[in-house]
Amino acid sequence: MVRWRPGARERLQAAALERFAEHGFDGTTVAEIAEAAGLTERTFFRYFADKREVIFAGQEQFEQVFLSGLEGAGDDHPMQAVAAALDAAATNFFPDRGWSRTRQAVIDKDPGLQERELLKLASLATAMTEALRRRGVEETAASLTAQSGVAVFRVAFGAWIADGETRSLADIQRAVLAELRGLVGDTGE
Amino acid sequence: MVRWRPGARERLQAAALERFAEHGFDGTTVAEIAEAAGLTERTFFRYFADKREVIFAGQEQFEQVFLSGLEGAGDDHPMQAVAAALDAAATNFFPDRGWSRTRQAVIDKDPGLQERELLKLASLATAMTEALRRRGVEETAASLTAQSGVAVFRVAFGAWIADGETRSLADIQRAVLAELRGLVGDTGE
Repeated sequence: MVRWRPGARERLQAAALERFAEHGFDGTTVAEIAEAAGLTERTFFRYFADKREVIFAGQEQFEQVFLSGLEGAGDDHPMQAVAAALDAAATNFFPDRGWSRTRQAVIDKDPGLQERELLKLASLATAMTEALRRRGVEETAASLTAQSGVAVFRVAFGAWIADGETRSLADIQRAVLAELRGLVGDTGE
Repeated sequence: MVRWRPGARERLQAAALERFAEHGFDGTTVAEIAEAAGLTERTFFRYFADKREVIFAGQEQFEQVFLSGLEGAGDDHPMQAVAAALDAAATNFFPDRGWSRTRQAVIDKDPGLQERELLKLASLATAMTEALRRRGVEETAASLTAQSGVAVFRVAFGAWIADGETRSLADIQRAVLAELRGLVGDTGE
């Protein structure tokens, strides 16, 4: 029986995240990451353009998993399509709470990484807006729904990786969406 | 009667925006801005650290006007406090639709400026979240309300500067908030 052995890419990612968490993002060099993974710097650069790419690898898939969920939704109200996108992402993109937690801790300590993460989420909102427009949703509604969906994702993700949280990301997202409904409904008029 | 004459700062801002709009942000030098304003480069740098600062001057006041509105709101539901923040900003920070329209057109053509603008709005969401927390609003609700408020502002601002739009920013924001209420309510369950 062949024992599964993680590939170079996965070893580099694991080694990088471990060192970032321990020594900070700025306090870690590519040489150290490569060494910790038992590989050369040359190999590192075959997989990643730079240190930062280790943290943001898979951004395209990240967006894609939301968009697939959105496009797979029935011909519902836009917010239901966005809810389907969030469900799909929770199920298909975030299998490992520990990895996500450590990654976020690394980001939270580095303003440059925080900016990049914000831009990633803004890009997701734009992509979801465009996908809703393609479904015939009017511009204001599309933008508003996509941005609200990303807000729900951000808040839910933060709760999901909090210490001691045991609910699934999908469950938390549904609870946060329900909370948003209550909050927005409270504006009266 | 003394005719009001704009100060150096205002002349530099007006000259810069005009040139950015005509020649693009990258296609404009500080020397050209200073010359167009009838001032020296040295004077330019007395007011602005760089070209980009001309576009983002007043960021602190921008946040402050939202926060003042929020803090001046009664002890209402969080979304009502955020609605008050948006009202205050519309009334006190955006007097000139033409300037806002040109500024946005300049930003829309430059990815670096777009990123900076997104970060500015993210910073606003964080500041409003913290202000709500200080009012005793629970973390999830605070974050969700602040982010939704910023989404409403973004969408309303985009509509406000669209060609031919005549409604006030405050009126558009109220309409967009009502639309959000409808959209979020539509998720059923």
